[in-house]
Amino acid sequence: MFTQPIPTLRRDGDSIVILDQTLLPHRVETRRLTTLEDVAHAIRGMQVRGAPLIGATAAFGVAIALTEDSRHPRLTHALETLAATRPTAVNLNWALGRMAARLLPIAASARIEAAWDEAEAIRAGDAATCADIGRHGLALLADVARRRHGRVRVMTHCNAGWLATLGEGTALAPVYAAHARGIAVHVWVSETRPRNQGLLTVWELREAGVPHTLIADNAAGILMARGEVDVVITGADRVAANGDTANKVGTYLKALAAREHTIPFYIAAPSSTVDFGCRDGAAIPIEDRGPAEVCTAHGVNGEGALCSLRLAPETTAALNPAFDVTPARFITGIVTERGVCAPARLRDLFPGPRL
Amino acid sequence: MFTQPIPTLRRDGDSIVILDQTLLPHRVETRRLTTLEDVAHAIRGMQVRGAPLIGATAAFGVAIALTEDSRHPRLTHALETLAATRPTAVNLNWALGRMAARLLPIAASARIEAAWDEAEAIRAGDAATCADIGRHGLALLADVARRRHGRVRVMTHCNAGWLATLGEGTALAPVYAAHARGIAVHVWVSETRPRNQGLLTVWELREAGVPHTLIADNAAGILMARGEVDVVITGADRVAANGDTANKVGTYLKALAAREHTIPFYIAAPSSTVDFGCRDGAAIPIEDRGPAEVCTAHGVNGEGALCSLRLAPETTAALNPAFDVTPARFITGIVTERGVCAPARLRDLFPGPRL
Repeated sequence: MFTQPIPTLRRDGDSIVILDQTLLPHRVETRRLTTLEDVAHAIRGMQVRGAPLIGATAAFGVAIALTEDSRHPRLTHALETLAATRPTAVNLNWALGRMAARLLPIAASARIEAAWDEAEAIRAGDAATCADIGRHGLALLADVARRRHGRVRVMTHCNAGWLATLGEGTALAPVYAAHARGIAVHVWVSETRPRNQGLLTVWELREAGVPHTLIADNAAGILMARGEVDVVITGADRVAANGDTANKVGTYLKALAAREHTIPFYIAAPSSTVDFGCRDGAAIPIEDRGPAEVCTAHGVNGEGALCSLRLAPETTAALNPAFDVTPARFITGIVTERGVCAPARLRDLFPGPRL
Repeated sequence: MFTQPIPTLRRDGDSIVILDQTLLPHRVETRRLTTLEDVAHAIRGMQVRGAPLIGATAAFGVAIALTEDSRHPRLTHALETLAATRPTAVNLNWALGRMAARLLPIAASARIEAAWDEAEAIRAGDAATCADIGRHGLALLADVARRRHGRVRVMTHCNAGWLATLGEGTALAPVYAAHARGIAVHVWVSETRPRNQGLLTVWELREAGVPHTLIADNAAGILMARGEVDVVITGADRVAANGDTANKVGTYLKALAAREHTIPFYIAAPSSTVDFGCRDGAAIPIEDRGPAEVCTAHGVNGEGALCSLRLAPETTAALNPAFDVTPARFITGIVTERGVCAPARLRDLFPGPRL
């Protein structure tokens, strides 16, 4: 069983403690969240990020909200506040729906304890799901390695590692499994502007001893054209019923290049990321995070102090869609906790209701 | 006739004065280059950049080298030193070849004056070439605008404006011409990591009053998928005889997305960027600029001071190909000083020898 080097989220009494991902890879600091507003702020500001982690954090947010306001608990208010934090990752809706389904039918007096229990079940469930995704994805990577003299060169985008989940990750779970199995895996990590989550992936992989190389997002095409990429695996923020997949902006460009160079392109995602209520990609809401992210960068200065700087003048107009949609026809397969399937066959793997 | 708001390069006695592009858009400062090493350093360090400007700067570098060492002029040493500064932009070889062809046949005593004359002819020739590219590209944009209720939404990559040339630019020359003609042109400017030359384009366009929006490189795909882009125009660093085109890394990803969404994709480049000695894109040398650029960012801090910061820890492995190759089959047309042609028909426009 994988243990996160530092828990992305853990309960501590009536609060949760999260790893503040806005400070990584430069500072490893945790934050204690004790109020509904703390939790909503942490999700909005991407102190926690990654679709599975966003979902679990929101679930704990409900428990915190009920505990905080135990005399006048406002379950609906908590659900609505958390649901409004970020629009694209459907795990948020999934987790809040699960909390609502568990809590609404029971007496108000029993809800606080039930909320903490259900949030914990979501947390533990995601950890188990990551392990299953790793197992199924390992088979794919081992198959590539067999045909490539024992090595496999993976390209990923954004961060879909343990930092994005409650377990070992989604897209990176197969990578960790392959590395543990002695397969010579190397990961091309794209920077993932504007928020640079590729640096989170670099940090994870270095700590785990997995060989990797950082590239500018722009370099994905030439590396594929040069034959330097065996397989692409990314996570997802929402998979529509037909397999169209919203993931971090830039994923679509990698999918186009992978198709051009006949490189398998996989999405790794738990079923909590699948939205069967969403017919296709056109129905997925795409978050616009505003111009500031495009016009700034964060890092450390010469003295090692955390700082941010402006890349562009104050008045620069910028557009910042945080996700894009990769049509199902570009996706070789989706790696889920129940196995790998073609994008159009998700219902075969998950025939029942979602919760 | 277009006049550059600030000359990218001007002769001043026995030296040249360049606009230091590493400080833009935050500081407008010029540098005087008085030695061969000054010039080589300015090209290597990208104080001057853009294929046409690199070529002209190198030409003046030859004149400076001969003047500097007038007792023991070392023409071959100057040509070799300058040729070694950057490998991909063929304008460098073209300009140095033109200098060699002019200077080698004549008496050493006549070379200094001839070198300054020839460099000036290259400068003036590029300015005229930009104007011609603008005129031919304007016809393309006007045609799009006619079908789009008078407006045209252009996507570009990197900077191929006046900053990259001795005139109004290559890819941006048609944009400036269309704006001057009253066509409602809007430009999507991609950041162009790792060196962020998109910010040079933003600066140019703002000064010129041309509407524009900065985007992360990753956002190019979703904008095309949404129907927000009418035409893509970029510059080039080297066009092979078959039309395969090396340009700033990331251009290829835009070409793939443009093809997917049936958006015309044009290269705007002078004939000095065409290398008929290079059979196809596989023969174009691609510069690797080293990991530091991928791991750092430059901008201004809260006090407005220029500074740089590290995005990734010191030990991060990174790969940094500065260019990629877009195959001719993805290119709708190449806009040259003699008109627009299909990539495979360059020889028809330029049947003679290159110099």
